[in-house]
Amino acid sequence: MSRSIAEELAKKQKEISVSEFFERNKQILGFDTLTRSLLTAVKEGVDNSLDACEEADILPEISVIIKQVSRNQFQVTMEDNGPGIVKKQIPHIFGRLLYGSRFHAIRQSRGQQGIGISAAVMYGQLTTGKPTTVRSKTAKEDVACEITLMMDTKRNRPDVLKEDFVIWEGKEHGTRVEMYLKGKYIRAKQSVYEYLKGTAIVNPHAQITLTEPDSTKTEFKRVTEKMPPSTCEIKPHPEGIELGILMKMAKATKAKRMSSFLTSDFSRISSRVAKEICEKAEIEPTMKPTRMKLDDANRIIDAIKEIRIMAPPTDCLSPIGEILIKKGLKNVLEDARPDFFAPPVTRDASVYSGNPFQVEVGIVHGGDLPPEGQVKILRFANRVPLLYQQGGCACTAAVENVDWRRYGLEQRGGKGIPYGPAIILIHVASTKIPFTSEAKEAIADITEIREEIERALRACARRLQIHIKKKVRKKKTKEKFDIVQTILPKIAEKSAKIVGKPVPKLEPIITKIMNVVWIEDSVEFKDGKHHVTISIYNYTPSRKKFNLYAVVPAESVEEKSFSLKPNRIRKSGKMRWELKSIPSTQKLDITFSLKGLDKEDFDETEVYVSGINPVQVIGAEPLPGDWDLDEEIQETTTIEDFVEEEDEKEEVEENENGLEEISKKENEVEEVMEND
Amino acid sequence: MSRSIAEELAKKQKEISVSEFFERNKQILGFDTLTRSLLTAVKEGVDNSLDACEEADILPEISVIIKQVSRNQFQVTMEDNGPGIVKKQIPHIFGRLLYGSRFHAIRQSRGQQGIGISAAVMYGQLTTGKPTTVRSKTAKEDVACEITLMMDTKRNRPDVLKEDFVIWEGKEHGTRVEMYLKGKYIRAKQSVYEYLKGTAIVNPHAQITLTEPDSTKTEFKRVTEKMPPSTCEIKPHPEGIELGILMKMAKATKAKRMSSFLTSDFSRISSRVAKEICEKAEIEPTMKPTRMKLDDANRIIDAIKEIRIMAPPTDCLSPIGEILIKKGLKNVLEDARPDFFAPPVTRDASVYSGNPFQVEVGIVHGGDLPPEGQVKILRFANRVPLLYQQGGCACTAAVENVDWRRYGLEQRGGKGIPYGPAIILIHVASTKIPFTSEAKEAIADITEIREEIERALRACARRLQIHIKKKVRKKKTKEKFDIVQTILPKIAEKSAKIVGKPVPKLEPIITKIMNVVWIEDSVEFKDGKHHVTISIYNYTPSRKKFNLYAVVPAESVEEKSFSLKPNRIRKSGKMRWELKSIPSTQKLDITFSLKGLDKEDFDETEVYVSGINPVQVIGAEPLPGDWDLDEEIQETTTIEDFVEEEDEKEEVEENENGLEEISKKENEVEEVMEND
Repeated sequence: MSRSIAEELAKKQKEISVSEFFERNKQILGFDTLTRSLLTAVKEGVDNSLDACEEADILPEISVIIKQVSRNQFQVTMEDNGPGIVKKQIPHIFGRLLYGSRFHAIRQSRGQQGIGISAAVMYGQLTTGKPTTVRSKTAKEDVACEITLMMDTKRNRPDVLKEDFVIWEGKEHGTRVEMYLKGKYIRAKQSVYEYLKGTAIVNPHAQITLTEPDSTKTEFKRVTEKMPPSTCEIKPHPEGIELGILMKMAKATKAKRMSSFLTSDFSRISSRVAKEICEKAEIEPTMKPTRMKLDDANRIIDAIKEIRIMAPPTDCLSPIGEILIKKGLKNVLEDARPDFFAPPVTRDASVYSGNPFQVEVGIVHGGDLPPEGQVKILRFANRVPLLYQQGGCACTAAVENVDWRRYGLEQRGGKGIPYGPAIILIHVASTKIPFTSEAKEAIADITEIREEIERALRACARRLQIHIKKKVRKKKTKEKFDIVQTILPKIAEKSAKIVGKPVPKLEPIITKIMNVVWIEDSVEFKDGKHHVTISIYNYTPSRKKFNLYAVVPAESVEEKSFSLKPNRIRKSGKMRWELKSIPSTQKLDITFSLKGLDKEDFDETEVYVSGINPVQVIGAEPLPGDWDLDEEIQETTTIEDFVEEEDEKEEVEENENGLEEISKKENEVEEVMEND
Repeated sequence: MSRSIAEELAKKQKEISVSEFFERNKQILGFDTLTRSLLTAVKEGVDNSLDACEEADILPEISVIIKQVSRNQFQVTMEDNGPGIVKKQIPHIFGRLLYGSRFHAIRQSRGQQGIGISAAVMYGQLTTGKPTTVRSKTAKEDVACEITLMMDTKRNRPDVLKEDFVIWEGKEHGTRVEMYLKGKYIRAKQSVYEYLKGTAIVNPHAQITLTEPDSTKTEFKRVTEKMPPSTCEIKPHPEGIELGILMKMAKATKAKRMSSFLTSDFSRISSRVAKEICEKAEIEPTMKPTRMKLDDANRIIDAIKEIRIMAPPTDCLSPIGEILIKKGLKNVLEDARPDFFAPPVTRDASVYSGNPFQVEVGIVHGGDLPPEGQVKILRFANRVPLLYQQGGCACTAAVENVDWRRYGLEQRGGKGIPYGPAIILIHVASTKIPFTSEAKEAIADITEIREEIERALRACARRLQIHIKKKVRKKKTKEKFDIVQTILPKIAEKSAKIVGKPVPKLEPIITKIMNVVWIEDSVEFKDGKHHVTISIYNYTPSRKKFNLYAVVPAESVEEKSFSLKPNRIRKSGKMRWELKSIPSTQKLDITFSLKGLDKEDFDETEVYVSGINPVQVIGAEPLPGDWDLDEEIQETTTIEDFVEEEDEKEEVEENENGLEEISKKENEVEEVMEND
């Protein structure tokens, strides 16, 4: 029996072409239900257009037109003003799976696999039998070329049915794809509309127009002319690199010696570090890389683990940024008014398996957000909204791992997606997002990434909590204040009348009762600028000396506008004032303005204090010892914070200025008091 | 600017080999974390072994040995007694992605992609730099061959480092794979141990031995010598076939006419149906299939939609079956004692996109199952346990869509995974499981599949509810009974004494008070058989005539053991008795025995009644009008139930027998009464 079976089986063994494989497993590519298939096709086209425009430094103008041809059949036309595609590449890009330009580049881009758009072509022909037509024009050519093609799935090669040169009126450069596919058009969540809306929010430099099957035309308008900072291609970072990849690289390198191989083919390996690695791995720095054996490679990997190597450069990454995250959340909210808007958190870049990545998180909470049901999670990867496979995504796993009960959300046993009035936005940017499948809708549960997301979530939730606490405490103290300030004078007046003496001075008594430093911040938007006032009242019986910190959007501060210059300003928008002395019962106002922001970009200043008993302060939280970090997780990298040794001298100087100014203020204050 | 960009981009355009793609995206194949990677490698090997053994009709004996080589490095050895692999195929099967024998076959098998085991080889060499050694012997050859190979990922071709013939002592045929890989060994959930345990449960014909890194050896013993019914290869079913596939098939067919193309290349198309299709599609049945145009194909697809075509044959599928589902659940329970064990539901086969599939569900509930936390979901696809990606699976989506509050579980808003003491087992069998990724850990959310799972869940939950209701009602009535039967005689005795008259006959009074038909079923296991007794007490004042139904495991009934022969026995194990007359206050026992089951396989009979007011019956539920179906969903296919027209004649005959017997009983009963 088994005699013949082995040979029978052998006869059946066959090679499967990659396109045949995906034709039969189209669900893996995101073509499972009719609704999702339509979305996936549009997504692949638009993501490509955005990538191409960014690479060519062109402000994107994209139009998506969806027409219903029959009950289940749609014509999808996507046009961009990108750099165009040279003619001989068109058939391969659109008619062949695993063909592309971004696979080998280590930089942040939306497409990386060389599968997306050709998969859409394949799905279209599989479900409608119709070819796809691509028109493209590069700036160099006078005319556009138009190619009609199908994919030969048996061979995974394009099958060009027609090609022609055509005049493309009014188009200098760009690409247009026209395909037919089986689908279903909806406008609810997980729809083309939602995807484009999400895309527009985190790509404010893009102009996107959608024409729906019922001819409704929606313009998602460009809101900034500024391109996102262009991302650079980098070399692989040594941290977590796989043995097999290291060996492949050593075989392929042009470097003649191990030391130069390490410095030139990796990022963040200086010659000092390369020397250290070779030493630890007991390898001659002069050895030819091509001679590297398995054992050598193993020792190098081990050595890399032991040596502290700088985090990868972050200019290969393009985070969304706090302002856009806020905007994104506000857009989702539409008419809802949440109580609390936690300042978004952008974590420093980190690495998994040699790939840099960066996590950002924003949370809104309370107000008239729906209190029933699970919190809404908005996921983005490399500025692309992820609408499907939420349950299988590391972002969701991270949300499930945080104990949200501490932040006022309902969560059984402190695990799982919490319930309550909140929306959580998560963005992961990376030179290589580890998607769970070719459909690129969920991020794999890589420990490093999930933990970074958890840290960002906790940090953001903590900010939220501080925010909530601050408001609650302020409200309570305010009530006490009001009572003291209305009742005390009346008592004083009455008592004075009875004993026939003058009404006593009440300020010292009030301060004794209150015994707080009251800090209030207000923001006013006028003439295109945000005018910030931070008022500090010393309602304590003694002089107060402490440090005040404020955080505002980076690079928006007008340096000249300060009523009191901070002793320290960081690029990140963090500022410190060393307030040397505020006399009892006196008030100090610090004012400054912010430029270049939209009205809704900024409505509240984060204020912290240090060098003072925090229970004496209302309106500002103690500076977190870890500042940006989560206390629950140990961190090995040093983070930027307010105290940096190399800056000490400069600081001292600034302190002295601060001192001068504050003494000036003090004098003024004392003058006022004497005049009283 | 954009001038050069298009050309620069063109220069970067490259073909990516499928192995290079997966080398960089190994998380898609299930190699993301170290723990999961080890599991995935074992899974691919064991699934292959099971498939090969089943194809060759060999009872599988599989051994898995995992040795720790260094901190993160493991040696994995997997050996089977399968048919072996012919020498020249070994390099391709193990050293090349997308190469296999099961891709084009429409039948239920574990592997289908030609990716699994070669992906493990690739992951091993990527993370350890070491090759894989495969030893295989077919029954035909005297010696085994041993090949050491790596994968050339640039070309996706095997690279044979060594090959040899060796004597394999005591092995007639089989295959052994030995590989090294980076991993992490755990024994918690989502571990190799859990996977093998799950596999053993649903593959009771397999003998599996696991040797863990600490040398612990676990035998998952074979519990049956019976191979699972072997699955047949079928032709594609026309329902839901994609246009592109139809056109491809028409081009490739050997048939000369459309009519014979339809009948010979598809399953369930008879010549009558073929004629009907051609008529509706306005196509000449004599047309050459190769001449079929896009329009023709479209019309054929439309015609197929309008014509009722038989469901696909189910012999291509191999469901786990109710008994094994019960066993599987009991095994998971270990020492826990649930209150309720819902009879598992095996749905009839259904189709999505031309692929037959079948859903099975089992639920246990209550008792000392942990009441906190979400219910446990056990997922299986083609008899393979799915341990990862639960959140992204159609099984989970289906569970989330059912309103479990009706079944006593906690669930916010009737959506989401419910909380409470329950375990839900779901098995999907199909000729093609639409996995969400090549890692084969989650089933895509295909509407047809998800809805079938939902139906099965609801049907099973309803059975659970009936079960619970039955027990609760019985308990209540029993209490009433006990009161009536202890107090009434005492009152009667006392009253009789007072008035000096004899104690009256109480049965008629009791029946008047109770007014129920009391049905009790009991099961006793003795001498390797289950002895079932269904007792029917008529505690009503009148004669009762109704139908009684019982469901027992299919094909286990001993026909000769019936004390009262049912009027109807179905292959599915459903039986009906037409009880023509049970006199008031009398009892009827129906006994029979079941053979070939293990003790724990059967402990309770499902009993239903019809033709009687159900509120009068305790201990049996009214026969569900839809029997197996869910009332909430409309079903188009006819299901097997007790009334089938073509069987009517046979039934009448049987009825008459039944009638005779029941009259015999009646006579006996009447005799007894007269003697009273």
